[in-house]
Amino acid sequence: MLLGSGELGREVAIEAMRLGAEVIAVDRYAHAPAMQVAHRHHVIAMTDGAALRALVEREAPDVIVPEIEQIDTAELVRLEAEGWAVVPTAEATRATMDRERIRRLAAEKARVPTSRFAFADSAAEALRAAQEVGYPCIVKAMTSSSGHGMTVVRGPNDVGAAYRAAAEGGRVPNPRVMLEEFLRFDLEVTVLTLRHFTTDGTVGTSVLAPIGHARPGTLYHESWQPAELPEAVQTSLAEVATRVTGTLGGIGMYGVECFVRGQAVLFSEVSPRPHDTGLVTLGSQWNSEFALHARAVLGLPYTGPEPTVPAAAHVILAAESGWAPSFGGLQRAWSTPGVRLFFFGKPEAHPDRRLGVAVARADSVSEARARAQEAAHRVEAGIMLEHPKRGNLLPP
Amino acid sequence: MLLGSGELGREVAIEAMRLGAEVIAVDRYAHAPAMQVAHRHHVIAMTDGAALRALVEREAPDVIVPEIEQIDTAELVRLEAEGWAVVPTAEATRATMDRERIRRLAAEKARVPTSRFAFADSAAEALRAAQEVGYPCIVKAMTSSSGHGMTVVRGPNDVGAAYRAAAEGGRVPNPRVMLEEFLRFDLEVTVLTLRHFTTDGTVGTSVLAPIGHARPGTLYHESWQPAELPEAVQTSLAEVATRVTGTLGGIGMYGVECFVRGQAVLFSEVSPRPHDTGLVTLGSQWNSEFALHARAVLGLPYTGPEPTVPAAAHVILAAESGWAPSFGGLQRAWSTPGVRLFFFGKPEAHPDRRLGVAVARADSVSEARARAQEAAHRVEAGIMLEHPKRGNLLPP
Repeated sequence: MLLGSGELGREVAIEAMRLGAEVIAVDRYAHAPAMQVAHRHHVIAMTDGAALRALVEREAPDVIVPEIEQIDTAELVRLEAEGWAVVPTAEATRATMDRERIRRLAAEKARVPTSRFAFADSAAEALRAAQEVGYPCIVKAMTSSSGHGMTVVRGPNDVGAAYRAAAEGGRVPNPRVMLEEFLRFDLEVTVLTLRHFTTDGTVGTSVLAPIGHARPGTLYHESWQPAELPEAVQTSLAEVATRVTGTLGGIGMYGVECFVRGQAVLFSEVSPRPHDTGLVTLGSQWNSEFALHARAVLGLPYTGPEPTVPAAAHVILAAESGWAPSFGGLQRAWSTPGVRLFFFGKPEAHPDRRLGVAVARADSVSEARARAQEAAHRVEAGIMLEHPKRGNLLPP
Repeated sequence: MLLGSGELGREVAIEAMRLGAEVIAVDRYAHAPAMQVAHRHHVIAMTDGAALRALVEREAPDVIVPEIEQIDTAELVRLEAEGWAVVPTAEATRATMDRERIRRLAAEKARVPTSRFAFADSAAEALRAAQEVGYPCIVKAMTSSSGHGMTVVRGPNDVGAAYRAAAEGGRVPNPRVMLEEFLRFDLEVTVLTLRHFTTDGTVGTSVLAPIGHARPGTLYHESWQPAELPEAVQTSLAEVATRVTGTLGGIGMYGVECFVRGQAVLFSEVSPRPHDTGLVTLGSQWNSEFALHARAVLGLPYTGPEPTVPAAAHVILAAESGWAPSFGGLQRAWSTPGVRLFFFGKPEAHPDRRLGVAVARADSVSEARARAQEAAHRVEAGIMLEHPKRGNLLPP
């Protein structure tokens, strides 16, 4: 049972079905991407613990696979305690969506290096915390992902608005916010880290080649694998990833986010599931992060990473709101060599909503990045939407 | 609209959905593999032209994609004449399932070398034809694939039984049968050949590296890519494949079957769709034969073959009849390095029915073959079935 049926869940659903699993897709809206490929689906508010419990008890899934953060994770923890299998663990899904819990776990329990950080329960506290962390800093909602509710603050005058954006912009409104040092880093990387059964029945950790990513704003925009980094940095990344995921436990794919500055590696956050930036593995790996997640969560052994092919992924974003997105520019987009386009089948668009991704292979990641971007931009220029009030297609 | 919803259609459905298409799966039985991933499905007898036409007119698909042979192809030809798009063409689907039509087309129109062959409308004629072709020879049903209704005849005494098997064992009973020289060949190969739009809007042909395959009987059993063949043989294979598919026309994936003996290449038959043996491309190619077929039939351009990774595929077969196949031996099967298993989700098993495939990568095709076989056999040993009369699972 997939809790969350977005584009990442869709690929997990495909891979789970290839493994012979029966797949039940759940989300809060109909026609979600994973619902379109699953054996069956349900539309419920997953933040409603009673609704979530009723569905779990009705379907009695062998494995519950949370795919998004907007879930009543406290109820998941109770379900797990009653014997339902949640991957990687219910506690990991709760801890990782709570910036305070995961940051303290990383810094104090896994003892990996992180940026300076502080927490605040009011605008006034945020101002004091910002002075402690230093300017510029980032104000973030406590429960969020993909950069929603996140603001860069350059001085005291920005703190009030940033505080409000974070307190109101998280998955749920929350007066407590996080402040974090604005790092001058060389690169943001995702270390896909799989906890899985090994051939002797124990649980092992496999760390994939680091994924580099860049974003003009706060949302995922493009990624590439492998990120070309010195050997020593790669070793540090693998160590941080192994320690953080080892502390969280369970089985399944984790996306460990780190900053790299020179030889230094700082832990940032972690997803207890395939990561947006890992969409690049649809091109760079034979076993995508989705295939690995499905394999691990079904309890199947894994013999360790395969070679990485230089590849890049670039999001295809809607520019405005509307229904039934359709795509022009495909002839030109598909004329970029070494490119594949994946469309998610989302029924509705809104500004900056991800409708697809271009994945490119090349001899180098820089060439792959150029190809993926070119193809994505060609499609973006041709997106057509139906507007309920106008009842027609917007010309490309 | 997929006409036929087996395991090959399932992968085509997945790839078409990734391309943003709405997929309608059709087959003669419920819960067929591709139905489980499609947006919706219909159960009809596709050999019933009226039922087929009614469904096409009701759904009004942009593209009709025949995936199996058991279709009223004469009705498809009429539908195409009325403007419905059939891939690669309705005539290609009709010609390729008719051994006489395709053999004459290859030998007389495409002018490619073939084995000696003859046709017969009775057991008596078959005896005369066998003498003409020479012993041993193969007697085949006129409309068949995957070796059903096919017998090797070693002398005159075998002809009567072989004739009856072929006349009754095809997709439809037919008194006319084909006799073909029993070739002493080195290797059977499939040349996956894609007719597709190019970046300048014309139709081009891309030929993938040859796939070698071996079978203990007449059914597909294992395949590998690339088949290691002399340069001159590869050139001949590409030429035969390009000529045959050029004669058939349209767009989409063709599987061109050839025999190789020394430096000689003989055309055998051709599927106007992804081929069983091409399941290996789930491991050997970034764009599997299914991804390429979906891309081509949706009219999208292709910039040409990507590199081939040495890989092999080995079928996972049921040994007996029963419902709801489930699989043991998975821990051991997945412990083979470099292996992925794909299960088709078929609701029913019967002897030698293909329930899944093991796909392996390795540094060499010989190692990949060994790995795929090992994993497949480990799963086969653990297949469990429900038997309606016993109402229980057969122990592994």
